[in-house]
Amino acid sequence: MNADELSDRCRKAKDASRVLGRASTTAKNGALRAIAEGLVDQGEAILQANRLDCEAAERDGLNAAMIDRLLLNAERLWGMAADVRVVADLPDPVGETFDMRTLPNGLQIGRRRVPLGVIGAIYESRPNVTVDIAVLALKSGNGVVLRCGRDALRSSAALADVVRRGVASAGLPQEAVQFIDSPDRSLVSALLRAREFIDLMVPRGGADLIRYVTESAAMPVVAGGIGVCHTYVDRSADLDMALEVVHNAKVRRPTICNALDTVLVHRDVAPSFLPRLAERWAAHGVEMRCDEPALALLAARPLVVAAGEADWGYEFLALKAAVKVVDSLDEALAHIERYGSGHSEAIITEAYSAAMRFLDEVDAAAVYVNASTQFTDGAQFGLGAEVGISTQRIHARGPMGLRELTTYKWVILGQGHTRP
Amino acid sequence: MNADELSDRCRKAKDASRVLGRASTTAKNGALRAIAEGLVDQGEAILQANRLDCEAAERDGLNAAMIDRLLLNAERLWGMAADVRVVADLPDPVGETFDMRTLPNGLQIGRRRVPLGVIGAIYESRPNVTVDIAVLALKSGNGVVLRCGRDALRSSAALADVVRRGVASAGLPQEAVQFIDSPDRSLVSALLRAREFIDLMVPRGGADLIRYVTESAAMPVVAGGIGVCHTYVDRSADLDMALEVVHNAKVRRPTICNALDTVLVHRDVAPSFLPRLAERWAAHGVEMRCDEPALALLAARPLVVAAGEADWGYEFLALKAAVKVVDSLDEALAHIERYGSGHSEAIITEAYSAAMRFLDEVDAAAVYVNASTQFTDGAQFGLGAEVGISTQRIHARGPMGLRELTTYKWVILGQGHTRP
Repeated sequence: MNADELSDRCRKAKDASRVLGRASTTAKNGALRAIAEGLVDQGEAILQANRLDCEAAERDGLNAAMIDRLLLNAERLWGMAADVRVVADLPDPVGETFDMRTLPNGLQIGRRRVPLGVIGAIYESRPNVTVDIAVLALKSGNGVVLRCGRDALRSSAALADVVRRGVASAGLPQEAVQFIDSPDRSLVSALLRAREFIDLMVPRGGADLIRYVTESAAMPVVAGGIGVCHTYVDRSADLDMALEVVHNAKVRRPTICNALDTVLVHRDVAPSFLPRLAERWAAHGVEMRCDEPALALLAARPLVVAAGEADWGYEFLALKAAVKVVDSLDEALAHIERYGSGHSEAIITEAYSAAMRFLDEVDAAAVYVNASTQFTDGAQFGLGAEVGISTQRIHARGPMGLRELTTYKWVILGQGHTRP
Repeated sequence: MNADELSDRCRKAKDASRVLGRASTTAKNGALRAIAEGLVDQGEAILQANRLDCEAAERDGLNAAMIDRLLLNAERLWGMAADVRVVADLPDPVGETFDMRTLPNGLQIGRRRVPLGVIGAIYESRPNVTVDIAVLALKSGNGVVLRCGRDALRSSAALADVVRRGVASAGLPQEAVQFIDSPDRSLVSALLRAREFIDLMVPRGGADLIRYVTESAAMPVVAGGIGVCHTYVDRSADLDMALEVVHNAKVRRPTICNALDTVLVHRDVAPSFLPRLAERWAAHGVEMRCDEPALALLAARPLVVAAGEADWGYEFLALKAAVKVVDSLDEALAHIERYGSGHSEAIITEAYSAAMRFLDEVDAAAVYVNASTQFTDGAQFGLGAEVGISTQRIHARGPMGLRELTTYKWVILGQGHTRP
């Protein structure tokens, strides 16, 4: 495939997206159910393709974590099929008309929700992203152009084939789903220039990929996924609660973007809180990178080390956390403003006014009082599913579900109205 | 001013915007009322600066229309002050909490509307844009960085001074309003790179400016203002209504982006409709650029000429219109899809199914049945005011009012919730 062929595929997706954008919910749900069935019925072909990917990855010396991300098996396929059925059962955002009213001159005017058009996705070695993104795009009436990493190319191609067959079986245009079945890296930059055909680009993967896509794309990008998340334990915190929430925010899944990176502890409660946290974390293998006051309280404990400047504002994605003692809520807020990435931030407090100030003043996609930042997730937030988590300010912020893959048009109904 | 000083100004706007974002509605409205008073009280200084701009423009040989755009007088200042008071009276979008609900696990979660941050504006020779944009930004809690064209620099500087004094008099940080008081063109490209400090860029001016800003800006842009607008007269149209609406859409104000550019007429009604339109338009000096079937119906009439290919999809901004006879609604829809700019499109019809298809299938910011496209305007749509008209799909479409200058953050209230 060369850049011209890629452009042609994108154009086909755009053309087909116009049909998909007007498709009935029944037809779109039919496509989704056919995809769920296809994942099971064509499971053997998918797993065969995945075996080739995994063998190649082993030959290329990928580490165990990367191969696990790549690996599919029957259970994972069934899980994917179940997830597709969940999306089929979600309400269709398209066609909702809102803010409809009659103006004093008798014009009826409102906004009608319509698909964005074509969603582009650039991702790495998780083949399930192929299905995740395609299904959310289809349900919200969008076409999709999928570009996956070289390691998962065969698996993702097999999954994209299932998606396209499902779309066609429901009488919808399979050209709405385009899969780039070439590992040529120059196609990525061509894709990022295809502003005429792709309305929104979604990068899914590591920080380098996200940065590259954000800086290079000619179309809007949902730039998310990078989460430097703080939890501040206020002087008035319930320390039992703080221990459970801070522990959960770090340890439940340390490798996801909403995991805790830095604990800020008010100096009044640091002497009682930090030793309890260090004891809990030592038992779970969490390394604590401490500022000097914290270090003084935790001296000679296992897995306690001195923090360097680079630890503040660092996304660990591992069983490591930075720990800082602060003099006040103000200092905590200033630290979060300086080092946070605008993803998820939490305060643990029993003080009403501290909770209110934190909610008011912290500028992040998700701001918590007395809860774990690991809740930042489309399904947890009641959106049913998510295409990604936005840390930008425009269009959508935080978990992006189906509604966030739509825009609106104004519809105006007159009876021969002319403007004076 | 050099690029470093510009960056410093942008940083100041960003820092001050955090204070402004938490300011009370009372304080913000106080600033707006002080600005309205300042426009009158400091009117002599503003008009003196404007006289210098106008004299320089005459020396530079600007044409009368351009000098009229530049010109301020007491009446125009009073009009600006009245417009500022209108914005002060609008509801404040900031702080509205929506989609708030309690999840099955007891977590309370919702979205709270917050300012975007800092709005950048790059505009040409209309000094009133200085006040328009600054006031909408301030009301919605945003900072603003203003860059106006060389011709209006003195006038706009005087107006920006009134704005800053008004902000300060209300106890808010005047650094939230930054005016770039240098005509150096290299500062524009520096401004377009200031992604760290400016959250949304609004270009206001001609097509070249808008294209340049859209293609060069590192931050999101509200790209609007280019409107290639069609009105389709269906076979079932009430032709008296069609005549009034088509005439209004072109002639009321031919130089604005929502003005009609192309009339599409169904062939069944073209013989009765087009001669009436030609008679009306000849009396108002509207040139009709016709395809062959239309030309055959209007042969030898005044101001009727043959259309060239470049007339389709052209934004005339003048008393000129392209005229095309189509065989069907399908042909009209296909023409609009190919040549429209996604701004405002209208159908004149008495047929229910034609109206429904037009509403469903036309992909534009504003889609009309039996009304003039000149209604596409923030005030007309009930938004109170507008910062611009977006023809993009992301974030906001059509007229952008105060709400469209905001984003939201998720707020989550727990009682020690941890994620299983």
